[in-house]
Amino acid sequence: MSEKQNDDTDPQTAIDAQREKHAHERDDRVYEHAAGDEQEGIPFIGAGPGHPRLLTVAGKEALEAADLVVHAGSLVNSELLSAYCDHAELVNSVGKDLEELIPLMRDAYEAGREVVRLHSGDPAIYGAALEQMDALEHEGVPTYLVPGVTSAFAASATLRTQLTLNETANHVAFTRPQGKTLDAEDDHIAEFVGMGDVTTCLYLGTHAVADTMDRLLESGADPDTPVTVVYHASWPDEDIIEGTVETIGGKLEAAGYRASAMVLIGDAAAGAGYERSYLYGEWANRSESESESASDD
Amino acid sequence: MSEKQNDDTDPQTAIDAQREKHAHERDDRVYEHAAGDEQEGIPFIGAGPGHPRLLTVAGKEALEAADLVVHAGSLVNSELLSAYCDHAELVNSVGKDLEELIPLMRDAYEAGREVVRLHSGDPAIYGAALEQMDALEHEGVPTYLVPGVTSAFAASATLRTQLTLNETANHVAFTRPQGKTLDAEDDHIAEFVGMGDVTTCLYLGTHAVADTMDRLLESGADPDTPVTVVYHASWPDEDIIEGTVETIGGKLEAAGYRASAMVLIGDAAAGAGYERSYLYGEWANRSESESESASDD
Repeated sequence: MSEKQNDDTDPQTAIDAQREKHAHERDDRVYEHAAGDEQEGIPFIGAGPGHPRLLTVAGKEALEAADLVVHAGSLVNSELLSAYCDHAELVNSVGKDLEELIPLMRDAYEAGREVVRLHSGDPAIYGAALEQMDALEHEGVPTYLVPGVTSAFAASATLRTQLTLNETANHVAFTRPQGKTLDAEDDHIAEFVGMGDVTTCLYLGTHAVADTMDRLLESGADPDTPVTVVYHASWPDEDIIEGTVETIGGKLEAAGYRASAMVLIGDAAAGAGYERSYLYGEWANRSESESESASDD
Repeated sequence: MSEKQNDDTDPQTAIDAQREKHAHERDDRVYEHAAGDEQEGIPFIGAGPGHPRLLTVAGKEALEAADLVVHAGSLVNSELLSAYCDHAELVNSVGKDLEELIPLMRDAYEAGREVVRLHSGDPAIYGAALEQMDALEHEGVPTYLVPGVTSAFAASATLRTQLTLNETANHVAFTRPQGKTLDAEDDHIAEFVGMGDVTTCLYLGTHAVADTMDRLLESGADPDTPVTVVYHASWPDEDIIEGTVETIGGKLEAAGYRASAMVLIGDAAAGAGYERSYLYGEWANRSESESESASDD
């Protein structure tokens, strides 16, 4: 508690102060801990794509020990919450602003309760973890991140494919379409698709697929480029809709999904062919640094 | 066993036959199972970045039940193997070609043993899972994928940041540098970095960082663009090297790492500032489809 700086700091002021501080030097904990280590404070945990079995061991252990879990509402599969958090107080963050959430988490932590902040997917991808962490840190409440499985990986597993495939997709882009929270000039979807060997994964864009595909067609994209949509990847109601840049908008509208789908543009997600890697063939006996360049992850 | 097609099929022939089959229609199991479900056959599991706590629950359960684990050698943290596979036969896949690995896994599976194929990270990202799955399927051995946490997410968690950050990084690219397994014209690193709001994550490129940075400078990239390298993200010997496009090559050479590092190019990984998201502010009370566009994952 001694680190607590002000009981009534406005979260925006707190965020600004923390960012200013770390613009010049990284937090010491960056060097003291490895990802996956248990640390002091409130863990910001990636819940993974939804299936309770796709949560990390670290996430499961934190949830099982939690007294209070602040979760991302309908973005987190309720089966995961009932599997691991039946004993804990659950607070849905949707519709609550930082001015409400930060004191709630701070007070619980200072009262000695085990607090967990549960985000969907991985917190590094289109999450809003950092602003909450900064606001809490400014209040003297330590926080840390626990990574998770992102929905694009679950979609790829469901489709029995890889997002990178030799000679088909050499790269992967995680992106989102222009709209209220992304200016048109920062929309790079046509550039990623235009490269021809990128699996483009659209996050937060279910409602905008038709418009996005229209823009792709205007940019000169091949209308037959495969587009594969996985709704609620890894959830019990997981669904797959397959089409092309030309057809997927209509198919998705017919299916009625307006949110919570992963949109994968490119041949790899469509299960197209690939060339056998060098990993298990004639390249097998190489030096260490060379062998890394053909190996996994 | 009745599905077994040929005891002595060459893996390349088997792969070609499977790809030909699925070029026209997806496997039925794509529609019958959701990612994370337990399925019949050999699971191809993403081990995550290394830390035993960053394996999924599904992965942990499969490893604990395994009789034979074929793993990616030094790419998988030995602490993870000792935590979950102490009872199992362990086979290192490094240096073995498909002609050796496929019969080994097939014979064990057909003898009723629980077989697990353990890849590092997530199998969808620069993995070579699919060619092994295709070869096994052609032999009548069912297989399925279990996603995992990729090393870029562990690196981001270690750095206490996000790969996307409002107004700083709107997109993420997973890419790798040109070399023996990627032609120069398929190297898009300069394009990703040139977009200015992409966190570019270099896989399989530790040995090629200096050359990659030289090419970036030639392409006109800002020499002061931050580059953050996380060696062995989430491992006990995790290490962080910080520099810029201009300096990171020399720093990495001085550190002596030639493999197993994640190279993150851009301001987000360097912990730069960001704008507070719309998620917990004035945009809190929107309709469902709009609110998705500002929410996480």
